[in-house]
Amino acid sequence: MSLLHLPHHDGSPLYVSDEAPALGDTVTVRVRTSAGDPVDEIWLRTTYDAEPVFHPTTSTTSGDVIWWEARLPVHNPVTHYRFLLVRGEDQDWLTGAGLVGHDLPDFADFRLTAFPEAPDWGRDAVVYQVFPDRFARSDAAAEHATPHWAVPAGWDDEVVFEGDDPRTPLQLFGGDLDGITEHLDHVADVGADVVYTTPVFPGESNHRYNATTFTSVDPLLGGDEAYARLSTAVHARGWRILGDLTTNHTGDTHEWFISARADPDDPHRSFYCFDDDGSYACWMGHGTLPKINHANLDVRHAMVEGPDSVVGRWLRPPYDVDGWRIDVANMTGRLGATDVAHEVARAVRRTARTLRPDPWVIGEHNHDATGDVDGDGWHGTMNYSGFSWPVWSWLRDASSTARPFGRPAAVARRDGPAVVDTFRAWQGTLGWRATTASWNILGSHDSARIRTVVGGDAGVHRVAAGLQFTLPGVPMVFAGDEIGLEGVNGEDSRRPMPWHRRDEWDTRTLATYADLARLRREQPALRRGGLRWAHVDADTIAHLREHPDGSVLVVARRAAGAAFTLPVAASRHLFGSEPGGTDLAPGPDGTQVPGADGPRCDVWVLDTE
Amino acid sequence: MSLLHLPHHDGSPLYVSDEAPALGDTVTVRVRTSAGDPVDEIWLRTTYDAEPVFHPTTSTTSGDVIWWEARLPVHNPVTHYRFLLVRGEDQDWLTGAGLVGHDLPDFADFRLTAFPEAPDWGRDAVVYQVFPDRFARSDAAAEHATPHWAVPAGWDDEVVFEGDDPRTPLQLFGGDLDGITEHLDHVADVGADVVYTTPVFPGESNHRYNATTFTSVDPLLGGDEAYARLSTAVHARGWRILGDLTTNHTGDTHEWFISARADPDDPHRSFYCFDDDGSYACWMGHGTLPKINHANLDVRHAMVEGPDSVVGRWLRPPYDVDGWRIDVANMTGRLGATDVAHEVARAVRRTARTLRPDPWVIGEHNHDATGDVDGDGWHGTMNYSGFSWPVWSWLRDASSTARPFGRPAAVARRDGPAVVDTFRAWQGTLGWRATTASWNILGSHDSARIRTVVGGDAGVHRVAAGLQFTLPGVPMVFAGDEIGLEGVNGEDSRRPMPWHRRDEWDTRTLATYADLARLRREQPALRRGGLRWAHVDADTIAHLREHPDGSVLVVARRAAGAAFTLPVAASRHLFGSEPGGTDLAPGPDGTQVPGADGPRCDVWVLDTE
Repeated sequence: MSLLHLPHHDGSPLYVSDEAPALGDTVTVRVRTSAGDPVDEIWLRTTYDAEPVFHPTTSTTSGDVIWWEARLPVHNPVTHYRFLLVRGEDQDWLTGAGLVGHDLPDFADFRLTAFPEAPDWGRDAVVYQVFPDRFARSDAAAEHATPHWAVPAGWDDEVVFEGDDPRTPLQLFGGDLDGITEHLDHVADVGADVVYTTPVFPGESNHRYNATTFTSVDPLLGGDEAYARLSTAVHARGWRILGDLTTNHTGDTHEWFISARADPDDPHRSFYCFDDDGSYACWMGHGTLPKINHANLDVRHAMVEGPDSVVGRWLRPPYDVDGWRIDVANMTGRLGATDVAHEVARAVRRTARTLRPDPWVIGEHNHDATGDVDGDGWHGTMNYSGFSWPVWSWLRDASSTARPFGRPAAVARRDGPAVVDTFRAWQGTLGWRATTASWNILGSHDSARIRTVVGGDAGVHRVAAGLQFTLPGVPMVFAGDEIGLEGVNGEDSRRPMPWHRRDEWDTRTLATYADLARLRREQPALRRGGLRWAHVDADTIAHLREHPDGSVLVVARRAAGAAFTLPVAASRHLFGSEPGGTDLAPGPDGTQVPGADGPRCDVWVLDTE
Repeated sequence: MSLLHLPHHDGSPLYVSDEAPALGDTVTVRVRTSAGDPVDEIWLRTTYDAEPVFHPTTSTTSGDVIWWEARLPVHNPVTHYRFLLVRGEDQDWLTGAGLVGHDLPDFADFRLTAFPEAPDWGRDAVVYQVFPDRFARSDAAAEHATPHWAVPAGWDDEVVFEGDDPRTPLQLFGGDLDGITEHLDHVADVGADVVYTTPVFPGESNHRYNATTFTSVDPLLGGDEAYARLSTAVHARGWRILGDLTTNHTGDTHEWFISARADPDDPHRSFYCFDDDGSYACWMGHGTLPKINHANLDVRHAMVEGPDSVVGRWLRPPYDVDGWRIDVANMTGRLGATDVAHEVARAVRRTARTLRPDPWVIGEHNHDATGDVDGDGWHGTMNYSGFSWPVWSWLRDASSTARPFGRPAAVARRDGPAVVDTFRAWQGTLGWRATTASWNILGSHDSARIRTVVGGDAGVHRVAAGLQFTLPGVPMVFAGDEIGLEGVNGEDSRRPMPWHRRDEWDTRTLATYADLARLRREQPALRRGGLRWAHVDADTIAHLREHPDGSVLVVARRAAGAAFTLPVAASRHLFGSEPGGTDLAPGPDGTQVPGADGPRCDVWVLDTE
């Protein structure tokens, strides 16, 4: 039986009448089954104040498809549901992680959330991530004196990336904000429309995650005026800009920490987690990164709560950011027995909503963000666990030593079925809404580059990009990926953009990114459509994205493979990561997807059933 | 490969050096693998303030077993962990739900909890549940006049059990507390040592879950004095007694509600969830059961917080209960956008701990209690989802219409592998500690009787009892199960105990319960041991319970089946639910478990490796 004959539901418009209901609304939810897979009954099960309650469905047959429909009361702000499928004495559960033949707890329940959803501009975005020190130098940048802490580097110098080399965080290449502003045409060439920069606060490092103040932009980057110029230029294109703020810690040279450390009676002392002996909690044991004590309401007000907090001030002119990427969101507010993480996330979102009609707030969480993204906290996360690592595990080269964060072993090499099981596990647990508002990333300034993970194989890299732009979630491209930059770890991946060495650019891959971005913009299904797995084998992952306004078939292959037939009507070829893609002619039994002689990713129009 | 060759870890003493660590402690955790299943490396992964962190293991070979050991810092009050097993490029996760070949979120992580654990007397208990109106009448009971609301019934009358028959909750058989006290020898015959009675507060129903006051015992039951006599008699045997309190709602005849409804300005008005129009929230739409508003701190103090609350008063003489079973714990404190459930659970436990050194608090949750039992809330739950329904689904008769609560279809009929998958899913999600402190129930006053679920087959019933007493968790026997009473639903299951019709008793099954209770008392492995699945097929579920002070092999068969061999040394026969059990003679390749000609459950001593 084809995967496409399996019962299906997801959180997209074909299956849910209202993706953003209010508390107390009733939403129509639908399940599709195949006429060839007879089901006696389907029941909707929801939990009502944590008590399971069942609602009946009614069914309608439409050709080979049977649609089952039920009315779901949105009783709790996050309303859980799933479906019970009865076939004689057999019972299966249809959950967010797929069909399960035994009873199971609620972790993979579908969910409807009555809190406001991520803004349309975010859900529809292609995000471009810039690490300011390494992106571009304007002419003005040359005028800055080297700060006392820095190890100056020329633009073509090798990046020092060994963790134990003291120069790693200090090597300053001197990129600045005007440099970004001058290169927005390149961002347009990639097809992105949201610019996300890593921190621009002053900090005694090239990454600036160890802020010395939150009140202004680093003069080395051009200061507040340069940020205003960048923000204005971005907005002039109809784009958006996102800031990056570490809520978990500051640098030990931060003005708050300097006064806190100097005087136990200083009001800033309670901003941090000092012990009586003067020691203090810090990020992962790094004494230069003292942890903020969010159990203290004064620092919460200074940092995240209200229009005059750091979070608030930057959402207003002259900075005028449209939202935030929050660094180390997973650890923020958590320390041993203390856990106010959700209060902090809620405060960030509340503050942003007070100042802008449609802010987007993404929490960095490289791990299981489930409880943190489902409600009124972060809209989504940087989806390393649910996207990056499974894609890496499918496409990695045997020689790659790239590791998921913290893992003492290289990412596993896995075949298609295990990779799809991974996608399912994370999509089911994060939930549809948080998955679609999260970032599909192939890497970032904190990880190896995808080009290096795939052993330098440009074709496989383009397959990865194909998944990035076609699976649910918002593509975030780390600047340089689109031209084939390499990097064995996060620090190495921060190589300067080789603007003056165009001959080194992989312009074909750049064109693929642009094609994918355009395709995503043109096809509502790729932004808002459901997801059905169509065909999965070791070297092939094929899926449908389906939407009332048009649907597509995506076939990703990591290696050469044979033709196969799908019980759908695919026709016009929309995208190919390699030459040779052709329109298809569906027959009475479906469509034969042609074989391939190597890695490639293709997208076709799916004719309406 | 035998299941017993799979890598294993659980929360028992063979695998965890301290089941009840304090925050900040470091605990040694161990994994066992088989020499025939080569593993290159095993890493311990924990989450530290929600950030994944890996710790190395060291290994020691002992015969065919390799033990891997790591040190786990208990950094958070509920510290998650799992293991990464590396075999070349393959990586598997060992989780609380077993071995998984792809990455997955944390829902099935092992957990160590730094909150105090359930008391020893609870973990070692066999609980006997009594529904007072139907257990026994003392001579004094005859003296009570029939209350105005009641439909009087003679002890041998048929129980009215149709939900839509108005007599169902009103039919009063007149059992009382002295009746229980007079029959404690029977409780001893079953082998139980904890008496749990459903509510004894006055209420205008036979079940008394609609309390009219919490200040005294129903005079129909003999009043406070009779309760004191029961409590004293129970304690005189060295046993314990548990009360039953509904924290979610009262009856609409409760003194608080009467004054609240009569006067919008009455201080009790805020104890409930009134709307401006005078309507009020209630349990599952039943207007006679108005929901308590635990967001209001006054009612929280009246009900659960502090020594003078209802929870507190009953923990003191003359009632002197040793703990509580909290009714409708899952919905308590939850209503739409309000969720203070955990605060209420924590308050109940805190209050109990203030008044007694070792209270036991079980929350009724027929569903997914995960978040409610893991920390400082309920010690455990009535484990319908993780125990009752899977056992029912394995042993149900084809004719049975018994349903899990709320489910519109009879329980599915499933084979051994799916049933074990269900056990695993729930054990993994609830966690080892909450599983072992929860109640293994074959049914209760709210469900069908196991004897009816299995179609009246006494042999299959005894197999169910075998699982109840040998799987992790505390057996709770609903009075009457031990003599083979039947019941098609909760109301029907409340049939009076036929004390004067001994010829109707299934004394063989009673003896089996007594044997199992004695076995559980004698074998530390059955109370505190780990759990390894040994052999699973459609009709057979075999498992080991292993403990440093002795281990056992349990083989449960729902039907006749062939012999099979296990790679362990089982020897002395300890228990058989049917005649014919024999000692075994392990050979060089393990032990041949004999075939069986019908349903049976056997337990053997497991010789130390």
